[in-house]
Amino acid sequence: MAAATALFLRNGYQGTSMDEIAALAAVSKQTVYKNFADKERLFTDIVLGISGRSDEIIRGMTGDLRGSADLERALTELARRYLTAVLQPHVLQLRRLVIAEAGRFPDLACAYYQQAPARAVQTLAAAFGELAGCGLLRMADPMLMAGHFAYLILSIPQDRAMFCVTEQFTGAELERFADTGVEVFLAAYGQPDPAAANCGREQDRPQ
Amino acid sequence: MAAATALFLRNGYQGTSMDEIAALAAVSKQTVYKNFADKERLFTDIVLGISGRSDEIIRGMTGDLRGSADLERALTELARRYLTAVLQPHVLQLRRLVIAEAGRFPDLACAYYQQAPARAVQTLAAAFGELAGCGLLRMADPMLMAGHFAYLILSIPQDRAMFCVTEQFTGAELERFADTGVEVFLAAYGQPDPAAANCGREQDRPQ
Repeated sequence: MAAATALFLRNGYQGTSMDEIAALAAVSKQTVYKNFADKERLFTDIVLGISGRSDEIIRGMTGDLRGSADLERALTELARRYLTAVLQPHVLQLRRLVIAEAGRFPDLACAYYQQAPARAVQTLAAAFGELAGCGLLRMADPMLMAGHFAYLILSIPQDRAMFCVTEQFTGAELERFADTGVEVFLAAYGQPDPAAANCGREQDRPQ
Repeated sequence: MAAATALFLRNGYQGTSMDEIAALAAVSKQTVYKNFADKERLFTDIVLGISGRSDEIIRGMTGDLRGSADLERALTELARRYLTAVLQPHVLQLRRLVIAEAGRFPDLACAYYQQAPARAVQTLAAAFGELAGCGLLRMADPMLMAGHFAYLILSIPQDRAMFCVTEQFTGAELERFADTGVEVFLAAYGQPDPAAANCGREQDRPQ
């Protein structure tokens, strides 16, 4: 699996053969075929395996939003971590690879979308829905709110990185994308009176 | 050029041969090679030719923002047209193709980015900078403002369409993406007192 992942990410689907995978893994071609029916099956398993782990990452980031004493700070922290995760070279390369193969494997490409970017937005939506419910965000469609948040934070650098493969962002640039994205989000969806919220945080308890 | 464009968009770079291009164009292979040094040259000319026209489109859309009597309405109209342009099937397919070939042709992929999505954002930035200068938008970094606007409008449906190739959006869905994107943008960048603006519009003139 590791050998196949490395080769698919580096050389694409068409540019990778089962022979090369066997050679890099230092096993026989028969061994590869015994474990994976064919190259298509192996490719599918790899794409869905990697993308299936992305929800865990975002779930870990949204866990403590509700209990946070300073929502803007917590969202900014989340935004910075989210952006860093999405801009990892192998994540970008997998994204390019899946888009490249969307014509040959349309169901796989759409399954990747559902499991990775869309699932992350759903996880954010659940968290934002709770924050709206207890008065820390305005009431609005949670999926739309979460989509706006995600793409405000991610899209400028992610789009540039998709096409300009050697692009390197400085830490300060990434912080600016995250921080200003959160500012725009809160200007639209922030609660005018967060002090009135009742979200089970320290400062929400009656004195 | 038309034959080569159709084949590259349908079958990708590797999946297209000069023989097929000549056959579809109903000319000899020699004729193709007389006009284009090789497949790489032809591919480059096509990608840069198509992407070079995208600035014109967005320039046409931003032309009358400053003179508009109702900025929210004008931005909403712009957002709807921008989204419709970006979601055209051949535009999405070109985007997929360039991303697919970013490993083989990194300079071309980055040149596409500079000519198409980034140029559109620059054109928006120039318009938004003017609107901020005469008091219809808050003062902020025009490139950042324009990036937030563009991706707020485009990214949710564009990202879904990249991966889910048969995705069809209804007109009502697209209007919702455009309209809510503009609302978020104006919550962050709108001027609290647009009546005080002096942008050369009808209602800005002294009575």
